[in-house]
Amino acid sequence: MPGSSIGQRFKLTTFGESHGPALGGILEGMPAGVAIDIPRIQAELDRRRPGQSQLTTARKEQDEVTLLSGLYEGKTTGTPIGFTLPNADAKPQEYAHNEDRYRPSHADYTYDAKYGIRDHRGGGRASARETASRVVGGALARQFLEQLYPQGPAPQVSAYVERVQDIAMPSPPAFYPTQTVDANAVRCPDPETASRMEARILEVKRAGDTVGGSVVVVAQHVPPGWGEPVFDKLHADLAKALWSLPAVKGLELGSGFSGTLMKGSAHNDPFVREDGAIRTATNHSGGIQGGISNGEDIVLRVGFKPVATILTEQATVTRQGQDTTMSGRGRHDPCVLPRAVPMVEAMVLLVLADHALRQRNARL
Amino acid sequence: MPGSSIGQRFKLTTFGESHGPALGGILEGMPAGVAIDIPRIQAELDRRRPGQSQLTTARKEQDEVTLLSGLYEGKTTGTPIGFTLPNADAKPQEYAHNEDRYRPSHADYTYDAKYGIRDHRGGGRASARETASRVVGGALARQFLEQLYPQGPAPQVSAYVERVQDIAMPSPPAFYPTQTVDANAVRCPDPETASRMEARILEVKRAGDTVGGSVVVVAQHVPPGWGEPVFDKLHADLAKALWSLPAVKGLELGSGFSGTLMKGSAHNDPFVREDGAIRTATNHSGGIQGGISNGEDIVLRVGFKPVATILTEQATVTRQGQDTTMSGRGRHDPCVLPRAVPMVEAMVLLVLADHALRQRNARL
Amino acid sequence: MPGSSIGQRFKLTTFGESHGPALGGILEGMPAGVAIDIPRIQAELDRRRPGQSQLTTARKEQDEVTLLSGLYEGKTTGTPIGFTLPNADAKPQEYAHNEDRYRPSHADYTYDAKYGIRDHRGGGRASARETASRVVGGALARQFLEQLYPQGPAPQVSAYVERVQDIAMPSPPAFYPTQTVDANAVRCPDPETASRMEARILEVKRAGDTVGGSVVVVAQHVPPGWGEPVFDKLHADLAKALWSLPAVKGLELGSGFSGTLMKGSAHNDPFVREDGAIRTATNHSGGIQGGISNGEDIVLRVGFKPVATILTEQATVTRQGQDTTMSGRGRHDPCVLPRAVPMVEAMVLLVLADHALRQRNARL
Amino acid sequence: MPGSSIGQRFKLTTFGESHGPALGGILEGMPAGVAIDIPRIQAELDRRRPGQSQLTTARKEQDEVTLLSGLYEGKTTGTPIGFTLPNADAKPQEYAHNEDRYRPSHADYTYDAKYGIRDHRGGGRASARETASRVVGGALARQFLEQLYPQGPAPQVSAYVERVQDIAMPSPPAFYPTQTVDANAVRCPDPETASRMEARILEVKRAGDTVGGSVVVVAQHVPPGWGEPVFDKLHADLAKALWSLPAVKGLELGSGFSGTLMKGSAHNDPFVREDGAIRTATNHSGGIQGGISNGEDIVLRVGFKPVATILTEQATVTRQGQDTTMSGRGRHDPCVLPRAVPMVEAMVLLVLADHALRQRNARL
Repeated sequence: MPGSSIGQRFKLTTFGESHGPALGGILEGMPAGVAIDIPRIQAELDRRRPGQSQLTTARKEQDEVTLLSGLYEGKTTGTPIGFTLPNADAKPQEYAHNEDRYRPSHADYTYDAKYGIRDHRGGGRASARETASRVVGGALARQFLEQLYPQGPAPQVSAYVERVQDIAMPSPPAFYPTQTVDANAVRCPDPETASRMEARILEVKRAGDTVGGSVVVVAQHVPPGWGEPVFDKLHADLAKALWSLPAVKGLELGSGFSGTLMKGSAHNDPFVREDGAIRTATNHSGGIQGGISNGEDIVLRVGFKPVATILTEQATVTRQGQDTTMSGRGRHDPCVLPRAVPMVEAMVLLVLADHALRQRNARL
Repeated sequence: MPGSSIGQRFKLTTFGESHGPALGGILEGMPAGVAIDIPRIQAELDRRRPGQSQLTTARKEQDEVTLLSGLYEGKTTGTPIGFTLPNADAKPQEYAHNEDRYRPSHADYTYDAKYGIRDHRGGGRASARETASRVVGGALARQFLEQLYPQGPAPQVSAYVERVQDIAMPSPPAFYPTQTVDANAVRCPDPETASRMEARILEVKRAGDTVGGSVVVVAQHVPPGWGEPVFDKLHADLAKALWSLPAVKGLELGSGFSGTLMKGSAHNDPFVREDGAIRTATNHSGGIQGGISNGEDIVLRVGFKPVATILTEQATVTRQGQDTTMSGRGRHDPCVLPRAVPMVEAMVLLVLADHALRQRNARL
Repeated sequence: MPGSSIGQRFKLTTFGESHGPALGGILEGMPAGVAIDIPRIQAELDRRRPGQSQLTTARKEQDEVTLLSGLYEGKTTGTPIGFTLPNADAKPQEYAHNEDRYRPSHADYTYDAKYGIRDHRGGGRASARETASRVVGGALARQFLEQLYPQGPAPQVSAYVERVQDIAMPSPPAFYPTQTVDANAVRCPDPETASRMEARILEVKRAGDTVGGSVVVVAQHVPPGWGEPVFDKLHADLAKALWSLPAVKGLELGSGFSGTLMKGSAHNDPFVREDGAIRTATNHSGGIQGGISNGEDIVLRVGFKPVATILTEQATVTRQGQDTTMSGRGRHDPCVLPRAVPMVEAMVLLVLADHALRQRNARL
Repeated sequence: MPGSSIGQRFKLTTFGESHGPALGGILEGMPAGVAIDIPRIQAELDRRRPGQSQLTTARKEQDEVTLLSGLYEGKTTGTPIGFTLPNADAKPQEYAHNEDRYRPSHADYTYDAKYGIRDHRGGGRASARETASRVVGGALARQFLEQLYPQGPAPQVSAYVERVQDIAMPSPPAFYPTQTVDANAVRCPDPETASRMEARILEVKRAGDTVGGSVVVVAQHVPPGWGEPVFDKLHADLAKALWSLPAVKGLELGSGFSGTLMKGSAHNDPFVREDGAIRTATNHSGGIQGGISNGEDIVLRVGFKPVATILTEQATVTRQGQDTTMSGRGRHDPCVLPRAVPMVEAMVLLVLADHALRQRNARL
């Protein structure tokens, strides 16, 4: 597979460049019979779209999705769902300055090294704009997962901004409902921390600079038994999905790096019986043991670097390797984190939907 | 794919349980014409094998590999390489105690939840013993990569123990040749740190407990252009490969989580011209930009939790969900890190070999 | 993979129902640097489109393709090519009669059996309309293959109608250029046979009935060495691709079933030296030996059944299993063969492009 | 994937050359909880093995399979099943004569053209010996399918020799139980035809020549709904699987090529109600409509060419392209058909098992 698909049974393939006519994708493997609420898909896109607040780029994309197939009278038919998202506010001329030189810490140089040709406008295929298609896929995955267990609690995925640069939430990772997360523009569920984060982002924006931080994502009500041994461990597939987002620098599961400082006797999660079910007393494992979900919350932390496009002048080289300088133009985010929240959720949802289907083949 | 394969063009599929008759695998996609040095494969297995030193489990596996196909007169023929590794020192009776109860933070419960049946002996398929097959695959990948550029420097991969619990090397990640790494039993290239690590591991071992830490792996001389946009970014595939190893809790690329504290103006890697080539002045990117290698060192840090098998008594439940206790028996490692070094290298080598082949299709 | 993709390195994924808003697809794996002539893609679609002549359905689709990504200044960039084909002349109301009953020898019953839900309008996903997306993929494959060997003769693929019911060309399979094939509406390169075929099709059409026959496809200038041993033999992949077209009942390679009547001494193709190259004196093998191309013409014959939609009354059952009758309405083809020619070419082109790329990984 | 695997969820990967130390494979995706009868696997291998009768090659392989993993106390565990088959009677020296010249209509030339290196001994990887691993996979698939519907009739697959050269069974394709098929050495269920076939094979053998013919395979009790729309149609996957066998020249489904002579009004299979189920009155469709099983018998006919190795002298060229001659030595079959019967069954069983698992994801 040439790299534009994710998932084996619930599979999203995307296409599209930042400043071409449209983005889009095909979602294969959606089972038949899932009722699809299209306005809810649009609502998830609205969480990702630029221009939501002062904290994000001023690019004015409506990101309106059109579903072209796979639905009949409001339900999925089991056939692939094709969709498109037109690029409405493309301003390719804003990118003339980076046609012949390489923006530092962007993909300009590496795409040229690989392909010998590159659509330089707004990062082309490497633009974070491509993640709009992932959010569509994730929104469809969410609706599938919600309808999977009519009797029981549905798997739920929620992410939030835990830290902007060194401003971090005081409390450990937990599941926060979307309305709590979205109560402020920075998408941090702790209001006091959120306002400090917001101030920092605006300060950095005024300086023409950028900041990073971390996003926590929690999946609850994932039943025990999802994930495969060896190479397709549930967290290995989650890791691949999350690392495929732009700007990721680090990932932790459960206790993460701090767990590597503990002794085994303290780190192990004792099994206990609770209301007739087998649970663990602690959750250093982050909901996954031996690559397979154990029914506890799946807890991941994703570190994002500061956005590479800054408005101050930087040293770089031309395509011909001559020294030069450049400074960012166009419309960019001072901090990717608030908009990364729906992207992170989408990736986790896609992986869970895939393993929900794969799990059906575990037993005779 | 059902989860026992890794790679698309250079693909390893493994089989085998800890205490069955044999482990093994099939390596597909090895190009024709690669000269294979079998003793060097064995030498890599010897780095992984149990019983190397006081720091590792006393299980006495020779881990002797037999290549069954795909070679003719010392060279690869382009057809799949099948191989087996007999389980010589299997003592299934040592595991009778965990047939009916779940070892905390092992895969016992989750395998039962998934499959309803489980080979409990030594962890079965979930045992770290399965990684022997990965080391064979990685050793074959290494020989392929070494012969890929007869004129230029070959891609090289080397890993080492950077930290055991809180005892860490004082210097930043760098490439150390294997002989430096292997100069001591703990596989830390700094002798003074190594001896403190060793003391800690032995102390913990005496207490029947375990410790974790981190391994750094560096790939040098990877040419620019390897990796694919979007989902199969080079670091996304590396992340999946590394997270598929047992006991991983965290992963960082380049600047990692500490990079998420920096501003964009400080984090960006300026391009510079050096000896006619395009290079970067710093390497916060860790050798990968937009998912594609840029020719700089690829630098990853993998955090491993303390081994779950401890010799002290722990609370747990039986398969029927009754409260009970158990303590580890069998032969186990107080610290997985020294033996994780060749496993980490193998995973990185497999991913690089795969992208070396995928890269050939980038241009007309 | 859920079944809407073909190819491993040159991979087409399609979506779309006969009477939904649009069809389309994503072509992944097209190498960078291929110059794309969009009017030539449209010309291939025009060969497949309905309403070309009296011999085909009266549905008036323009089948206008829009490429949405993967091109920059007329050349491919190595990123996926997304495309859409709007359904302009959809008349869903024409299909009300088959909502609650199963058309004989169509996919109505089996889709219901599989999914429990079905878009009955015009066959939905099972409609031959879906093949428009394949023709786009095949047209892109053709342009890639043409530019693959700037120095030498490019691989060429051409198909034609060899037989309609019992009216067959008198001469054995051969390569005919498209302009010869397209000289008449039935796409048979022998004018005399073509006019008899045309008369037969019109006669059958007047009777409200349908006929089948066979299409021959020949690929010339495929270099030796394409195809993989064992399961992905070149002809195994061609077989899958061709059998995935609607209405296929038989397939032959080279000597086909008549070759199974010969003795080995007569059937074997002796190797001979010709102009410095290794060739075979005969071509019973049909250009493929051991699953790998040998440089001779690849010759395949595909048998198509008569179209299932007929205008006379037939016995059938309702969704509830009650006996009933129905007769075809809507706009249908009396004979699929003339329009099958570009579909068959497309499938062969897609497979050849895939193996052209796979072949690059055969040697160190 | 590099071509040595078949199936997506029930996946067989094979390795091994004709005269290397061993053949073998890995079967992934076998669900947990299937009781495995190992002697029955061996019995299927015995049907394929050389030296069964005067009609087959004198090579004396016991083809003893060892299962190395994936079983625990007689049941599958859901983990991959690795297996090996040692090459006991390898006589590589018998093949010295074809090291430097190309056997006509064998894979010698094409493997050299592809890889530039070749294990010439007995055809290496291209040898029909590789199919032993497929028979193991098929035997495991059969046991899985048999246990899939504890309440209802299990899917059953049976093949037989329908025609040797021009000596054909007088009756149309039907399901014959294995004991009827195996009642004679030629595996034709009609005793009178069988004895004429046997005489022909022995006559041709005495002349140092070879013959081909056709095998019919029928799958009964496959439930409606297996197979996927578009590219992974059930018969497209069956076609690929069957065309991947050595020596295949033609394939027909249901009415086959003779169906292409009929009119639609005669060819369509009317739906009827029978014992409360929806059935078809005729079965020209061969049990598959729109790529999905309809519950009727799946009927396929596979044409095999005469074996390429003949004992009389033939013209050919050396690796350097010089004219020469050669005649077959080694131990070969005058007619592949009796031994092809278990191979054909294996391929059909593997595809059915795969789609049995894929089918589980069709609905919410």
